Amino acid sequence: MKIASLVVAWMLIGAAICAEPRVNGERLNAHLEALAAFGKTARGGVARLAYSEEDRQARDYIASLMKGAGLQVSIDAAGNIVGRRNGRDPHLPPLVLGSHIDSVPDGGKYDGNVGSLGAIEVAQTLSEQGLTLRHPLEVIIFQNEEGGLIGSTALLGELTEILLDQRSRSGKTIREGVVFLGGDPAALEKVKRQRGSIASYLELHIEQGGILDAEKLDIGVVEGIVGIKWWEVTIDGFANHAGTTPMNQRQDALLAAARFIESVNRIVRSVPGRHVGTVGRIQALPGAPNVIPGRVVASLELRDLEETKIDMLFQKIEAEARAIAKESGTTFGFAPLHVNAPAPTDPRVREAIEKNVRALGLTSKVMPSGAGHDAQNMSRLGPAGMIFVPSARGISHSPLEFSRPSDITNGANVLLRTVIALDRGLSR
Amino acid sequence: MKIASLVVAWMLIGAAICAEPRVNGERLNAHLEALAAFGKTARGGVARLAYSEEDRQARDYIASLMKGAGLQVSIDAAGNIVGRRNGRDPHLPPLVLGSHIDSVPDGGKYDGNVGSLGAIEVAQTLSEQGLTLRHPLEVIIFQNEEGGLIGSTALLGELTEILLDQRSRSGKTIREGVVFLGGDPAALEKVKRQRGSIASYLELHIEQGGILDAEKLDIGVVEGIVGIKWWEVTIDGFANHAGTTPMNQRQDALLAAARFIESVNRIVRSVPGRHVGTVGRIQALPGAPNVIPGRVVASLELRDLEETKIDMLFQKIEAEARAIAKESGTTFGFAPLHVNAPAPTDPRVREAIEKNVRALGLTSKVMPSGAGHDAQNMSRLGPAGMIFVPSARGISHSPLEFSRPSDITNGANVLLRTVIALDRGLSR
Repeated sequence: MKIASLVVAWMLIGAAICAEPRVNGERLNAHLEALAAFGKTARGGVARLAYSEEDRQARDYIASLMKGAGLQVSIDAAGNIVGRRNGRDPHLPPLVLGSHIDSVPDGGKYDGNVGSLGAIEVAQTLSEQGLTLRHPLEVIIFQNEEGGLIGSTALLGELTEILLDQRSRSGKTIREGVVFLGGDPAALEKVKRQRGSIASYLELHIEQGGILDAEKLDIGVVEGIVGIKWWEVTIDGFANHAGTTPMNQRQDALLAAARFIESVNRIVRSVPGRHVGTVGRIQALPGAPNVIPGRVVASLELRDLEETKIDMLFQKIEAEARAIAKESGTTFGFAPLHVNAPAPTDPRVREAIEKNVRALGLTSKVMPSGAGHDAQNMSRLGPAGMIFVPSARGISHSPLEFSRPSDITNGANVLLRTVIALDRGLSR
Repeated sequence: MKIASLVVAWMLIGAAICAEPRVNGERLNAHLEALAAFGKTARGGVARLAYSEEDRQARDYIASLMKGAGLQVSIDAAGNIVGRRNGRDPHLPPLVLGSHIDSVPDGGKYDGNVGSLGAIEVAQTLSEQGLTLRHPLEVIIFQNEEGGLIGSTALLGELTEILLDQRSRSGKTIREGVVFLGGDPAALEKVKRQRGSIASYLELHIEQGGILDAEKLDIGVVEGIVGIKWWEVTIDGFANHAGTTPMNQRQDALLAAARFIESVNRIVRSVPGRHVGTVGRIQALPGAPNVIPGRVVASLELRDLEETKIDMLFQKIEAEARAIAKESGTTFGFAPLHVNAPAPTDPRVREAIEKNVRALGLTSKVMPSGAGHDAQNMSRLGPAGMIFVPSARGISHSPLEFSRPSDITNGANVLLRTVIALDRGLSR
């Protein structure tokens, strides 16, 4: 053997040793297509409400993929799907990867699904490459993320009786939904985890905004998740015959609601910042063309990285509602429905993500998440981080949601390498 | 026998001969209470949507009352309940009394029911008193008045295939509803009546406005029924994630709808007159608190005694909608749903009603009907009239709808005497 051949052989051996594993992007994207069949809509999107039949069928598919990836699969008492893989050191807390597969009523096929399948792909890659981490690895598919991060709320021990009795968009109460998914609402104490009980939490997700797409960047490193507050707004007027009640004698709840919706938009836009405010749901009762609406029930949502700003906006909106009520002969009631506190990610996790983005030759940007994620709950149990991949034209919660297969593969590779890095790094 | 006794006896005989029959007001109001049990709501009103199980059960009850009143009862091909009583002259066309018993989703127990039971009470009184009219008498309980005068539209031969395929509030199409009620959509030709085929049409109804109540009058003599036009308004924006889409990049269909609802009210009120305009139904899609609505579907209704005024108002509203669409990045579509032309009542019938109001010692006023009624269809088949009784505080299409039992009895007595008068008078 010549010296040159020896050098080449040595270089090949070195490359093999130094090469980090890569996920199978083709398989990952094929799984994403297959998952999209559950709850597929005519417009090419996904309607897979938590606790629906579509949700249950998709979860069965997910559980089969997890088993195929060498994970031990179980349904916890809250109805989350948990896949576990032992580490070399049984005394270490788990590294947790997670996301969700439930959707909004007319959503897309990427939101939640990319992170769920990305996490499973990471487990499968580790399994195929015979890599055993020091920490146990857990993949958690949280139930009912879109209805208020229900699955991860249970891990905090905060899935209260009041929440359990709330009706979800499927028509079932959350309590009924937990049972429907194979959980046990009476045994929720078992799923509660303590702060420090996880080594780290990582979630891969589509950005759902248009920043990465517009700036042609590969990866978003999430600095924090905005706080979200929801209210149920009830406007009471007086239902009456639309033909016989003169215009000046009406107490039209829908007219008051229209003025309210307009004022929410005006107030939110009048204050500088990245906060947003939305009325997304509305019902007028009794709801007939020939009856003046006597009651309107609508939703109000406000989001910002600062909770104080949310509260300030709400106070302005409430004051305006009082003025509308007065001049329209109606009353407004605001019932707080749902609160997520703003959640910063862990700087060490962000650093690990950024280092591996660079090692993969990818570009990235540190950015907030305008959307809520289970990561914000998990950040209260241990150091958490999120990896964003671009959303084409920033479209999400829509059948037109799209992320390129290559971007999804990049995201899963960043997830894989970051898990391996955190497995090493968190030992220090 | 003394002279004095003879005079008294003569007077008594004379009174008995001259006395017109009176309805049994106690029985009529008891029937009204009994009928209110079908579809009774927690708030004390009635939810008896056409083609619902409640509707069917109430119709069975009505049919039993009609049989008890000596009427020959049948269900016509359109699903209307028809009760018939022969007259002395088989060659004369029938005098028709009618109304409806279906309700709006959260309605009251008087709308339609007063006229339906009033007509049956008139038939029962005639039967009990052994009075046979010259004309045949028909009592028709029209199906699905609230969904667009469907039953009487069939009598005009205008229940088209397009209408039959329309979905009613019960969830059933009108075609399915006709079958559900025992009709036969394939045999509608049989129920079609020609102009001149009825001697007269009379309908007793609650006013549904507050004029008689405010002016302390007993009876309203209806001069005409306003025209009604309905549109389905569809606003298309772009559904997107409410957390990640900045305020200035939204195409929020519900925000555009809010501006539209406000503008309908402003435009309708800016023109002098008794016309009204209402948005009573709205749906935002997909309808989640965390999704910017991409589509809104709402109703628009305009009413006036002059069709040209309705059209003028609609043109103004449509122009305003175009402006809203432009500045909000949305599009508006208006699909005409339903049209009722304004319908004047017959002056001879009005005169007969007024004469009998006076004979009964009651007070009255000539007034328009802001509400639509089957009478407007029936006025195209022969001379038609309507008798209004007061609605307390003008409240209708609401569980708080109320008319005093004594007013209802007055109305039924006016109906009875007017029928007898028209039976005589129309022979001239």
